[in-house]
Amino acid sequence: MYLPDQFKECDVATIRELVDDFPLAVLVAQGGDGLIANHIPVIFESDSTVIGHVAGGNDLHRAIVDSAEVILIFKGEDAYISPNWYPSKPRHHRHVPTWNYQIVHIHGRISFHHDERRKRAIVGRLTKLFEDRTNGQEAWRMADAPGDYMTEQLANIVGFSVEIDRIVGKSKLSQNRDIEDAQNVCEELDLRGHKAMPRRMKDIFGD
Amino acid sequence: MYLPDQFKECDVATIRELVDDFPLAVLVAQGGDGLIANHIPVIFESDSTVIGHVAGGNDLHRAIVDSAEVILIFKGEDAYISPNWYPSKPRHHRHVPTWNYQIVHIHGRISFHHDERRKRAIVGRLTKLFEDRTNGQEAWRMADAPGDYMTEQLANIVGFSVEIDRIVGKSKLSQNRDIEDAQNVCEELDLRGHKAMPRRMKDIFGD
Repeated sequence: MYLPDQFKECDVATIRELVDDFPLAVLVAQGGDGLIANHIPVIFESDSTVIGHVAGGNDLHRAIVDSAEVILIFKGEDAYISPNWYPSKPRHHRHVPTWNYQIVHIHGRISFHHDERRKRAIVGRLTKLFEDRTNGQEAWRMADAPGDYMTEQLANIVGFSVEIDRIVGKSKLSQNRDIEDAQNVCEELDLRGHKAMPRRMKDIFGD
Repeated sequence: MYLPDQFKECDVATIRELVDDFPLAVLVAQGGDGLIANHIPVIFESDSTVIGHVAGGNDLHRAIVDSAEVILIFKGEDAYISPNWYPSKPRHHRHVPTWNYQIVHIHGRISFHHDERRKRAIVGRLTKLFEDRTNGQEAWRMADAPGDYMTEQLANIVGFSVEIDRIVGKSKLSQNRDIEDAQNVCEELDLRGHKAMPRRMKDIFGD
């Protein structure tokens, strides 16, 4: 992606948090018949691997081979930024609209998993993360479902892991603006209910 | 993308609304050196064309040629769906987690625009849409900025249009669930602040 130096996101914790908070990635690959793109929930399994699964009916696992290159694209919050939000505007009017956003691209090589044990482990990791977050003490567990039903469900999916080659993060958060303009953009985003962007902007620009 | 019949979004108004409400698309193309993906605000210019612009520094307009095939991927709201949200769960426990989301893929052929008049028209359309929405009567207008500054800004961007070959919409909104389960998922999403998904779900399932 286009990535001027000032927008490079190099903070590992910020990148991990964005993937964690916005896990529905676009998995993009080049198939024999053209580009393939699917939205799929994806989480880190380790520092070097992310995991997920697709429906058995999804041709992805037939259209690309093991070790094919893929990009996983994660997007955090995004917002239109109006020139009206810059306190310096009335002084010189030298502003145009822009868009702020936080993006992570994970580049790597995919492997598909068909054995039940590996698929069960992948589904277990995803479930634990999302259920703990959604329901806390009331978290649903795989063991809540009948064994035959879970076996059937697992037979209907294909697991995958992506060995990470590189991660590219972009936080386009008004770093190219004067501090008072950037701080006011942060305020405006806060007022409009954004959370992740203002949090990172406060790290960068202060309150 | 993987698109079972029950999740096909065929309602043209819903597709237009999703692009309109979530305009920051991922533009994906196959370059000579691999996949290229950039997030870019994109809007409809007509039923058959969408438009946007990139920074002149963005290699996209050098890495792919005019009429290259691209996909523009738009994502509306998305949410993890817990099995706990299905009223039928205590009766048979035959449920697993899933993810709901609304996605639009626009497939087409890109043209880049370097002449100032066309770029000014593209920027004008984008600005009008987003400023009217953000600031109403107080909308910023290109004429608010000094002429020399706007000319300089326009020189620094490259416009593009995509002639649309086909549009694919996916609304994965619990259509594969019993009506009482789907309606309660809708309630849970509503409670959690989702707007676009519950609105479409109410169209499908009723209140």
